[in-house]
Amino acid sequence: MIAQDTFPVDPWLVRETQLVLDLLGSSESVFALSNGHIGFRGNLDEGEPHGLPGTYLNSFHEERPLPYAEAGYGYPEVGQTVVNVTDGKLVRLFVDDEPFDVRYGTLTSHERVLDLRAGTLVRTAEWTSPAGKRIRVRSTRLVSFVQRACAAVEYVVEAVDQPIRVTLQSELVANAAMPEQSDDPRVAAVLSSPLQAVEGDSGRAGATLVHRTRVSGLQMAAGMENHVAAPGRVDVETHDAPDWARTTVVSSLDPGQELRLTKFVAYGWSALRSTPALRDQVAGALSGARFTGFEGMLAEQREYLEEFWDAADVEVEGDAEVQQAVRFALFHVLQAGARAEQRGIAAKGLTGPGYDGHTFWDTEAYVLPVLTYTAPQAAADALRWRARTVDPARQRATELGLRGAAFPWRTIRGQESSGYWPAGTAAFHVNADIAAAVERYRVATGSEDLETDGGLVVLVETARLWMSLGHHDARGGWHVAGVTGPDEYTAVVVDNVFTNLAAAQNLRVAADACARQPDLARSLGVDLEEQATWRDAAAAVVVPYDEDLRVHQQCEGFTRRPEWDFEAHREYPLLLHSPYFDLYRRQVVKQADLQMALFWFPDAFSAQDKARAVDYYERRTVRDSSLSAAVQAITAAEVGHLELAHDYVYEAATVDLRDLHHNTGDGLHMASLAGTWLALVHGFGGMRDTGGALRFDPHLPSGMSRLRFTIRWRQAKLCVDVRPDAVTYTVRDHGSSIDLRHGDEELTVHSGEPVTRPLTTLVPLLPRPVQPPGRAPHHRDLPS
Amino acid sequence: MIAQDTFPVDPWLVRETQLVLDLLGSSESVFALSNGHIGFRGNLDEGEPHGLPGTYLNSFHEERPLPYAEAGYGYPEVGQTVVNVTDGKLVRLFVDDEPFDVRYGTLTSHERVLDLRAGTLVRTAEWTSPAGKRIRVRSTRLVSFVQRACAAVEYVVEAVDQPIRVTLQSELVANAAMPEQSDDPRVAAVLSSPLQAVEGDSGRAGATLVHRTRVSGLQMAAGMENHVAAPGRVDVETHDAPDWARTTVVSSLDPGQELRLTKFVAYGWSALRSTPALRDQVAGALSGARFTGFEGMLAEQREYLEEFWDAADVEVEGDAEVQQAVRFALFHVLQAGARAEQRGIAAKGLTGPGYDGHTFWDTEAYVLPVLTYTAPQAAADALRWRARTVDPARQRATELGLRGAAFPWRTIRGQESSGYWPAGTAAFHVNADIAAAVERYRVATGSEDLETDGGLVVLVETARLWMSLGHHDARGGWHVAGVTGPDEYTAVVVDNVFTNLAAAQNLRVAADACARQPDLARSLGVDLEEQATWRDAAAAVVVPYDEDLRVHQQCEGFTRRPEWDFEAHREYPLLLHSPYFDLYRRQVVKQADLQMALFWFPDAFSAQDKARAVDYYERRTVRDSSLSAAVQAITAAEVGHLELAHDYVYEAATVDLRDLHHNTGDGLHMASLAGTWLALVHGFGGMRDTGGALRFDPHLPSGMSRLRFTIRWRQAKLCVDVRPDAVTYTVRDHGSSIDLRHGDEELTVHSGEPVTRPLTTLVPLLPRPVQPPGRAPHHRDLPS
Repeated sequence: MIAQDTFPVDPWLVRETQLVLDLLGSSESVFALSNGHIGFRGNLDEGEPHGLPGTYLNSFHEERPLPYAEAGYGYPEVGQTVVNVTDGKLVRLFVDDEPFDVRYGTLTSHERVLDLRAGTLVRTAEWTSPAGKRIRVRSTRLVSFVQRACAAVEYVVEAVDQPIRVTLQSELVANAAMPEQSDDPRVAAVLSSPLQAVEGDSGRAGATLVHRTRVSGLQMAAGMENHVAAPGRVDVETHDAPDWARTTVVSSLDPGQELRLTKFVAYGWSALRSTPALRDQVAGALSGARFTGFEGMLAEQREYLEEFWDAADVEVEGDAEVQQAVRFALFHVLQAGARAEQRGIAAKGLTGPGYDGHTFWDTEAYVLPVLTYTAPQAAADALRWRARTVDPARQRATELGLRGAAFPWRTIRGQESSGYWPAGTAAFHVNADIAAAVERYRVATGSEDLETDGGLVVLVETARLWMSLGHHDARGGWHVAGVTGPDEYTAVVVDNVFTNLAAAQNLRVAADACARQPDLARSLGVDLEEQATWRDAAAAVVVPYDEDLRVHQQCEGFTRRPEWDFEAHREYPLLLHSPYFDLYRRQVVKQADLQMALFWFPDAFSAQDKARAVDYYERRTVRDSSLSAAVQAITAAEVGHLELAHDYVYEAATVDLRDLHHNTGDGLHMASLAGTWLALVHGFGGMRDTGGALRFDPHLPSGMSRLRFTIRWRQAKLCVDVRPDAVTYTVRDHGSSIDLRHGDEELTVHSGEPVTRPLTTLVPLLPRPVQPPGRAPHHRDLPS
Repeated sequence: MIAQDTFPVDPWLVRETQLVLDLLGSSESVFALSNGHIGFRGNLDEGEPHGLPGTYLNSFHEERPLPYAEAGYGYPEVGQTVVNVTDGKLVRLFVDDEPFDVRYGTLTSHERVLDLRAGTLVRTAEWTSPAGKRIRVRSTRLVSFVQRACAAVEYVVEAVDQPIRVTLQSELVANAAMPEQSDDPRVAAVLSSPLQAVEGDSGRAGATLVHRTRVSGLQMAAGMENHVAAPGRVDVETHDAPDWARTTVVSSLDPGQELRLTKFVAYGWSALRSTPALRDQVAGALSGARFTGFEGMLAEQREYLEEFWDAADVEVEGDAEVQQAVRFALFHVLQAGARAEQRGIAAKGLTGPGYDGHTFWDTEAYVLPVLTYTAPQAAADALRWRARTVDPARQRATELGLRGAAFPWRTIRGQESSGYWPAGTAAFHVNADIAAAVERYRVATGSEDLETDGGLVVLVETARLWMSLGHHDARGGWHVAGVTGPDEYTAVVVDNVFTNLAAAQNLRVAADACARQPDLARSLGVDLEEQATWRDAAAAVVVPYDEDLRVHQQCEGFTRRPEWDFEAHREYPLLLHSPYFDLYRRQVVKQADLQMALFWFPDAFSAQDKARAVDYYERRTVRDSSLSAAVQAITAAEVGHLELAHDYVYEAATVDLRDLHHNTGDGLHMASLAGTWLALVHGFGGMRDTGGALRFDPHLPSGMSRLRFTIRWRQAKLCVDVRPDAVTYTVRDHGSSIDLRHGDEELTVHSGEPVTRPLTTLVPLLPRPVQPPGRAPHHRDLPS
């Protein structure tokens, strides 16, 4: 875990004031830069020491066999794994003849700063070489939001008190050696030397390398162009080999003098395009970067982010840590999706190889709700990616004996890559989650552009999937049997409440969309009878309820299962210490599941049932998933446990900044980052968007004096400014108005006419529930 | 499938009248010889052509890694696989300079006969070489029941009409090349060259080879000694190499003259003993065989079998095929277990490498019930093997977070080797099946020798396992959640009826045994309170019942699951064409499960419930397991569907003789073979042994005019002679008497005083049920 003071609290910066080598893996993830297309882990410029070297291109992957001790029908045989591509970040420095390596010599100071408004990672260091030569280094790194194929590094070295000879090596390196990895199943499969050299080329101060993956047959090019500014004579030359290219810059500096290297890096990859086309694509991108110049790229970057923050910022008064964390979270969520452009948004974004670089339901259920309200174009792009993978999803459904499309539980390019069916194939709710994201985009933006461009296909094919998965019982009730809900410690069940309600919503939404798009629906073979069967099933959906305990059952029979002995199992995550057979059969919940249903389907539960459900499931949920805390924050807030909700917000917010799950080094937890926003906006903001309408019912915990957030709704921006006793709704666009509900009151808010209302009264029906021993939410260390 | 006339019907022989190369794999299994320690597949003497070369030593295995696409806690990482050991069967023949190979020249006649009373495989062939030389060959092979480490081959070649030069090569061959195998998960993992040469040695007419496995580190020795009788001059010499040894015999024959080779073969293996010790062990065994001589070994073998048949034979009048099949079955069941001597009895015996040579619950639930009543010492030995593996079973339980011992679902030496936990680890009923076999042995033999020598440990530790697996609900009912019953198309369920009743019996039996053996129980830490908790749980066991349908549920909720679309799935076995997720969630049954409960626990169900259960589950059971037909025969007979039962008996009886599952080539289905006996004795004989008493209620189908069988009970033999209208019970031992129940009548039968009773009236309560389309039992092709 990372200590609370490692990244001092600052509203717009994440600053590391000294280098802790043990935390390098985590800090590389925290300081990762990405635009959704290119991802640079926050590795030190000189490459070593490192936690894990990492450079990624969205969806650029290798295939590997998935082995099984006992084979089974329908098991995916090919896995997809993200590849660590050619590293363009590297700048090595020699002072006289000694390499700048923080493990040698004396590091007087070392600071790294991620600037959330500038979109840069700035590193400053003062170092004395073992021979006593003192230098200052300042590097500024960016991955451009504006120029999607480009990144840049400015590297400045200054002689402090003696004349020195300085050598810089600006490199491209493919197939970097990777450290040994653990057995933890959440870690990526190791691929050693995944890239085969295709061609290389270099000029005086730049080079291009083209590589290809062995099995998946994807081709990628990486190019660099180096510019040097030096006070005196400077020699520049470049060499290339199959797996590396190196521009060497040599110069002398007197005390106070600086050598400045500006390195432009560009990437391209394709499954289809030729080697020359890729090579030229990279050259073109480099030309664009050179034309803009480093200062120009910095300015573009800041401007891009200004526009983003203007409509996305969340201000938290009274809790500086959460303030910092939610901006950090929004920044990384943006980085993951901004320019993904019809490729997936992975569970770790492009910050690390965890989960093999796969996209899960996290994207649609956690990340896209945030992007929909803050960067809707990125949300639409991610959903268009899903729509483009409908063919493999249809094939998968056919293979499984189902109709429609079965989207994969985990994938990079659309094919199911899950090697354990009870927690993969059976988790069919991913399909309803995708459908929900399509509908949410339509409702929030008021635009049908996605629906007519792939969205309807997704809705129709997932509806068909549900019809073949579900069945009516003798009394007409509609059930879904044999599926796994969000809680991965309970699998292959009958009538998981979340899945059933999400499936029903999927069916209704698909029918409504077909009614809006009759021609398109007809072209997909949907007739009125099919729509009627969807509406019938949705209306008859069964939601299991324990009449004795008066509590909803996460799934049929859940509340009658044996209890888990929490006292006897104190090592977490449980999945590394107990067999699935025992976890599955007992009342132990990995992550919000019934509570996810409370959040997504607020109108399906009475206030009393919500209160009892939160009480019941809080006591049995261990939060071995980083997806859980945010949803528990939201439901705790709704039933009036605001302080508990605050603790959950803190936990969700600091999963990565404090490495609560001990695996931030494999990449950031995008869902938990997005969850920080969800927890604040839906939890304390009380926002719900179910049924096409916008509702708020805000309440603040005692530790927050103000919560102010902006969302995009239809063509306008709505600012919600919550204080302990009142909320002000402001529409920020001239001539716009927004209909919303505050508590039970319907309001129309016009631009220029903010509306202030007192907060509603919120009295918890039950006392604050306790969590399993040792699993209370991670509490912030308050100053004593 | 094998045609009905391939093995002409004969009461005591299995005769193949011509060689069908396509059926070689199956016929090698059918003609396999074994004594439970050594196994020879029925490969041709000359080795080629072959289906699958096979020579096995019970429990001699190699280890291999079990891979997982996604790892999980408690997954076994090491698999155990039976090894094809050094082949001692080989005798190659050259006629002049042409090899005797049935694929060349002209094969005028070829017959193989498995003699079930002699215990030999006799082959006769008449062949004309491509050069026109005609010979007769007759080989007689046996694996000795009496001399456990020994086998022998007598090979006689005769010149028919021209003088010939004859060369015989009598060989030992290790690491024989294996044919490519299929992807079917039921097939063994291929191990190429599993044996490493340790040492070899040869004399003039014999040799010994010692080999070792690479990973499991087991050492084995194979030795041969050859004796030659020839009318004229004969040259004999022997060579050895690391992986083979060859005795070459050359002689000339005039027409009508014979060359006779007698080959004694001996084996030994050990995980502990030294190379010299193993070498000497084999030499000693060869000395014993030589002393006895081939004729002596034949005589011993026949005598051993005479004693077996005297107390085990089943006579069936009116159905000659079943008559042959049940003797074939008893012979192979005996072969699998006779001399296993505290090693496991594998699902395929020692007839092939299917299922990796593993032992499953089949042994205790199918094979041992037969051996208990026909060769009880073999049953006791098999259970002593289980008792000797209690330590790995205890470790497994601890690993799984359970108390007591969790015996493996599949294993060779006691460690769990199942690579798919829902159908392996979760199938905990194996523990109750073992306990039931321990109890059955005690009841049937009247002896406590097993109970005090390992049996009680098994009963106590399995009882403890059940106590930690089960739980009491709020109303006191005792449930078992998260386990898989016999039906492998329904997994990880709550309250599987068979498992619950078997667990309850396990608990009761363990408590009773502790009461009988108080000192031993105390040494295992069992006190009266622990016994009381066992009895309490057993008394409170929950048996799910659907009150609407008035039918027992195979498991909680089973009858409310969606139905399987049998019409849409016509390719079997279903597991090769449909995903587990769909099989598991629907009402489709792979094999008798609730019906297994009806058979094992007859007093737990009313006659009406039995009739309805048979009707309900017959319609949903596809019999994709060879374990199913026998149990369906028994329950069909009990509820009065005698003709249906007859069809199931025929199917169970011919699974291998007609290769109904298309995998007899991987080895015989021991459980189905044993099931033939179970189906006749428990089905038409109506025998039940529950609760310590012996009951009969026989009824014959119209196609049988008489069923006569003998079982061992306590110290006596009981013959039950059923005719269409009456049954005669005869105790065959002077001065003995047996208490039994005929229908509702209590009888004491004294030796020398047979008791004849009319059969009870049996009227089916419901019409004969239909099976899923295309899955009616395999009907015998009656003469038209």
